[in-house]
Amino acid sequence: MAGEATGRQWAPLPASADDVVADFYSDMKSIPTKGMLDALLNARVGDVQKGEDPTTTELCQRVAEMLGKEAAILLPTGTMCNEISIRIHCASGSELIAERSSHIINFEAGGPAALSGVMMHSIDGEFGRFTAEQVRAAYRPVSRYAPETSLVAVEQTTNLGGGGIWSLEELGEIAETSKSLGLATHMDGARLLNACVETGVSAKQYATGYDSVWIDLTKGLGGFAGAVLAGTDDFINHAWRYAQQWGGGLRQSGYIAATGLYALDNNLEQLARDNALAKSIGAQIAPLPHISEVLPVETNIVIFNLDERGPDAATVVSKLRDQGVRLGVFGERTVRIVTHIGVGPEGGDLLIKRLRALLEE
Amino acid sequence: MAGEATGRQWAPLPASADDVVADFYSDMKSIPTKGMLDALLNARVGDVQKGEDPTTTELCQRVAEMLGKEAAILLPTGTMCNEISIRIHCASGSELIAERSSHIINFEAGGPAALSGVMMHSIDGEFGRFTAEQVRAAYRPVSRYAPETSLVAVEQTTNLGGGGIWSLEELGEIAETSKSLGLATHMDGARLLNACVETGVSAKQYATGYDSVWIDLTKGLGGFAGAVLAGTDDFINHAWRYAQQWGGGLRQSGYIAATGLYALDNNLEQLARDNALAKSIGAQIAPLPHISEVLPVETNIVIFNLDERGPDAATVVSKLRDQGVRLGVFGERTVRIVTHIGVGPEGGDLLIKRLRALLEE
Amino acid sequence: MAGEATGRQWAPLPASADDVVADFYSDMKSIPTKGMLDALLNARVGDVQKGEDPTTTELCQRVAEMLGKEAAILLPTGTMCNEISIRIHCASGSELIAERSSHIINFEAGGPAALSGVMMHSIDGEFGRFTAEQVRAAYRPVSRYAPETSLVAVEQTTNLGGGGIWSLEELGEIAETSKSLGLATHMDGARLLNACVETGVSAKQYATGYDSVWIDLTKGLGGFAGAVLAGTDDFINHAWRYAQQWGGGLRQSGYIAATGLYALDNNLEQLARDNALAKSIGAQIAPLPHISEVLPVETNIVIFNLDERGPDAATVVSKLRDQGVRLGVFGERTVRIVTHIGVGPEGGDLLIKRLRALLEE
Amino acid sequence: MAGEATGRQWAPLPASADDVVADFYSDMKSIPTKGMLDALLNARVGDVQKGEDPTTTELCQRVAEMLGKEAAILLPTGTMCNEISIRIHCASGSELIAERSSHIINFEAGGPAALSGVMMHSIDGEFGRFTAEQVRAAYRPVSRYAPETSLVAVEQTTNLGGGGIWSLEELGEIAETSKSLGLATHMDGARLLNACVETGVSAKQYATGYDSVWIDLTKGLGGFAGAVLAGTDDFINHAWRYAQQWGGGLRQSGYIAATGLYALDNNLEQLARDNALAKSIGAQIAPLPHISEVLPVETNIVIFNLDERGPDAATVVSKLRDQGVRLGVFGERTVRIVTHIGVGPEGGDLLIKRLRALLEE
Repeated sequence: MAGEATGRQWAPLPASADDVVADFYSDMKSIPTKGMLDALLNARVGDVQKGEDPTTTELCQRVAEMLGKEAAILLPTGTMCNEISIRIHCASGSELIAERSSHIINFEAGGPAALSGVMMHSIDGEFGRFTAEQVRAAYRPVSRYAPETSLVAVEQTTNLGGGGIWSLEELGEIAETSKSLGLATHMDGARLLNACVETGVSAKQYATGYDSVWIDLTKGLGGFAGAVLAGTDDFINHAWRYAQQWGGGLRQSGYIAATGLYALDNNLEQLARDNALAKSIGAQIAPLPHISEVLPVETNIVIFNLDERGPDAATVVSKLRDQGVRLGVFGERTVRIVTHIGVGPEGGDLLIKRLRALLEE
Repeated sequence: MAGEATGRQWAPLPASADDVVADFYSDMKSIPTKGMLDALLNARVGDVQKGEDPTTTELCQRVAEMLGKEAAILLPTGTMCNEISIRIHCASGSELIAERSSHIINFEAGGPAALSGVMMHSIDGEFGRFTAEQVRAAYRPVSRYAPETSLVAVEQTTNLGGGGIWSLEELGEIAETSKSLGLATHMDGARLLNACVETGVSAKQYATGYDSVWIDLTKGLGGFAGAVLAGTDDFINHAWRYAQQWGGGLRQSGYIAATGLYALDNNLEQLARDNALAKSIGAQIAPLPHISEVLPVETNIVIFNLDERGPDAATVVSKLRDQGVRLGVFGERTVRIVTHIGVGPEGGDLLIKRLRALLEE
Repeated sequence: MAGEATGRQWAPLPASADDVVADFYSDMKSIPTKGMLDALLNARVGDVQKGEDPTTTELCQRVAEMLGKEAAILLPTGTMCNEISIRIHCASGSELIAERSSHIINFEAGGPAALSGVMMHSIDGEFGRFTAEQVRAAYRPVSRYAPETSLVAVEQTTNLGGGGIWSLEELGEIAETSKSLGLATHMDGARLLNACVETGVSAKQYATGYDSVWIDLTKGLGGFAGAVLAGTDDFINHAWRYAQQWGGGLRQSGYIAATGLYALDNNLEQLARDNALAKSIGAQIAPLPHISEVLPVETNIVIFNLDERGPDAATVVSKLRDQGVRLGVFGERTVRIVTHIGVGPEGGDLLIKRLRALLEE
Repeated sequence: MAGEATGRQWAPLPASADDVVADFYSDMKSIPTKGMLDALLNARVGDVQKGEDPTTTELCQRVAEMLGKEAAILLPTGTMCNEISIRIHCASGSELIAERSSHIINFEAGGPAALSGVMMHSIDGEFGRFTAEQVRAAYRPVSRYAPETSLVAVEQTTNLGGGGIWSLEELGEIAETSKSLGLATHMDGARLLNACVETGVSAKQYATGYDSVWIDLTKGLGGFAGAVLAGTDDFINHAWRYAQQWGGGLRQSGYIAATGLYALDNNLEQLARDNALAKSIGAQIAPLPHISEVLPVETNIVIFNLDERGPDAATVVSKLRDQGVRLGVFGERTVRIVTHIGVGPEGGDLLIKRLRALLEE
């Protein structure tokens, strides 16, 4: 196993989830609805690499327009969108600025360094957000010795930051500062649309000033695969090249694209319901015993901390899992809840009921 | 566009293919049948990364068994299967032995070097095949100065070699020699099943002695996405890691897996029909004017060369394209034809009719 | 210029330094003494790669013993010692823990990511030092998604931390914690011997528990090139491999080794003088006007900050440079002074005199 | 040892060479003369990275002029010159064209792929040389799928090709063809000056049309370290960046530069003597028993093959080694002899005497 350096093993996969009634582990758990699958079935498809897949073409044009960019590409996952963007924006040996809790630093298996040779300059922000002033401080003047600052990356909404929404003003200042310093800008928009339905600000407005932006067809939108990355024509042309090199060059992707088009037409209201459910859950958790903090709930993520006298996160998650409710462990005393199309208010009620019983023990 | 080094542009995508009647460009052109889509619709799915997607689990177990390996993983494309295998088998700075016409050397955008830091040791074989003796000659004794030989990769069937089939004996000798030299072995099985239906040798027999092997769900099997890579448990565990890092970590992949299970149950006979059609086409092309050579047709690929007095490959392909028949240019005077589920005997007749007319002009 | 991604230019090199009387810019400015050059001249040399250079062999054995390691290798620079150690200890995609001000993060042109695909996990320590507790907090439990923590690196003495000395206890706790977590440990000992002469603790004691450690033959020791990296036999064997690959495989390196042997025999007392001079300078700077802080001076580095009402760092450095005294700019209001064999007490007096005059203006 | 993938060990280093009388193993075996060391001793030096080392500046200017380039940089080894040039000329994932026996493919531990992500396109030439026509055939038209051809590299003189000299015409055609295809060009000039003294053609003439060229200060010139790489100002600016990143950023390199300046003034005639000795040796070996072939001897390298009935290369080399004459094994039945400043006509006589005795046994 020459290419892999360590003898460590990753955890074995857990058994079946048939007994899970309410799955708040992640919005990755969402599953296509019947309407979405019908759309898939009727898709007109062809080889997208030859420009012969009208459904993919339509989706890419629509997303590009929605994000105010020239072009777009459909890729297998959001992680590939992030990593290809980094690969295009950053020279090997250069440095990327991102918040310490960001997905690219924590959940992409070291991809930025492994695939692009990029150094991480992590900023300690607040709820996953940082300021233009912090960008300016992190920027390195050009030198033969220092890694060259190349890119600033933001997440809208923040993930580990608790689903927080960057304001247009915050995003605009960061984009402007970055540009003035000659830096590229990237937005991980995995849950961008959750912000849009919450604030009424358009995706295009949020994306203004960002060289690359993507949205996910899974998660809140309810698809089973795919994410759409947008940028300039030249950027997308290069993205195709890396997609081919990394094994992300899809062919009859119209079946996936059809689920995306369906979601954009039909599932945006669901995002508003997801956000509302999360807020309701957050408000009900806050007063429970042993809850030391609930991060501000702005969209579909609730992150709460347990105090030292109560059970720890693993215990809470494990006990609720035995009762059919799944949450996620995000720290020794930190738990994450994510709402999505696959869980409704009754799921939320069950969650609160079980959690209250456990904490009041 | 800091991460990309050149100002060159790749060719613009061609226009719609609505007027193509018979598409022999590639078996990548195949499109799911109604039966296959029905299977997709009824798939039981979940988050495969949590082991909760029974359809993907079933497909992976079935392919692993079929190939005689411990485990398997469903990835977006065959290229990702190749590149992840190389990444796992080969240390950075080591050297891979493959035939000069192989897919990994020619069609993966330099992935082996870019993603794994691997040097290419190309062997000049015959119709894409080489011998154990050539492996022995290419092997480098361990030295501080030389790149370390790490992997031998074969294609069953050969692609640019004209769809040729390696015999069990050839494959066995190469595997044995490689093992005796301490080298890993990899089989690109994009069209492995085309060989199986032709010879009656099982996939497991062909795969014996190869550390990693994959089959494609698209191409001859007729799916729209996905390939299944098999190896040891440990190998597949590492493959999951790289899949995550490169953005190939699928979630509700059961929809894709369902098309694969359907194909294994229903589409293998089609491969025999594809092979038969290709042979028939090859036999009819050989006597045409200006044909200097037709490579031996063993499966579903026909590669022929045009002599110097006739039109060149681009001209032939372009003229036939205008008449609704699509072939592929594979050299200045070399044309490739691939048969698949999307073209039948009448397509073959049209191809021969148009080609004869053109060459007899 | 395909391999390089940006159009930026690094600063042009400055003109001659003939008019510099006292150069406190860096101990890289030290130049061999006559005695050292005589030692070079009389060195017995050969091809070290064939084991035929007795002087290099002697130096490597001596340094290995001095650091309590099995073996050592002479490399062109300390940066290569750091980067090769990272390459050997860390898998691509894994994560390295180091203090935010460390040389490997700030002054090696992004080498850890570019050469080894390693992610940076920067710790915000104090004067360049951090605690075992901070290591424990930075460690990531094994996961398919997270970068795998692989290495903890320390600098003895700290450079941008102001030349501070880690205590044996601090280093021991970090080594022990790292080992208990399965992490490799590395010590950048560019100025390790400055710590030894100051505290009386041996290099071997400081290096205990660290898998790789190196000392520099330039800087305080006064050589013109070379650094010696020590570790296990296996580690050094791999280091030779990378040295060859990166172009650091020296041949008749006995000439350089001879300067190192001479320095170990003759120049250690000079380090004590360097430390004493730095302390004297630090003590004299502290009471000057517009000095907001002088970092604790423990060895041969003095870092001081200017308050907002006085001139900024660039102005101070530029004005003193015009008067023959060279210091270094290390922040908008931060200046660094380094003592070494090339500057004596009279240089220190001149520095203080000029600096006082400037700040009292 | 996480960063290294294999458990293989490289061969242990051999014991002392004190009993070698005539060392024809490589011109890397040359050792500085007294005059050269005197030049070293009297060098004016400083920190070259600050432009303060007049001796290095003088050497770089002289070599740049000699090679007809704008600028030059002094690096630790010729391998670093090759690898940095590749890094600058080639994008990751692109493809380099070189002769199958070239140093960069065979003796740099996989550096082109490991450091630059570059694919190897090896050409089978004759005596290490190839033709412009072969370059044209190896060039890949731009495609999203193929690795992009980026660089053509030649060796003047060829090393494993037997020290052969490319003619001005051959080099010119390759440069012209490469330029017309948009490719960069690089010349490994490790023994370029051996060609110059032989043909009377200037280094500048040979280097015309090549974007980067380097000469070695060791080997024939007799220095103990260092090579000088020349190119445009921009190229050298980037080379400094990589030199820093890889640990090749020297400081008081004037001591090494002084040996280079001395060699250019004093040792060129020695190269002519080396060439003459090699020719004489080659001519005397040709008629010996069991010699199946002596490659054409054009400069200071003699490569000969042993027939099947005589001893193999390892036996010949081992037996002569026991008698104080060292040659190199370069294949099962292939032996290499290299002449240099450290061996004279009497060494040649001894070699012939011993070899004849052995083969006539």
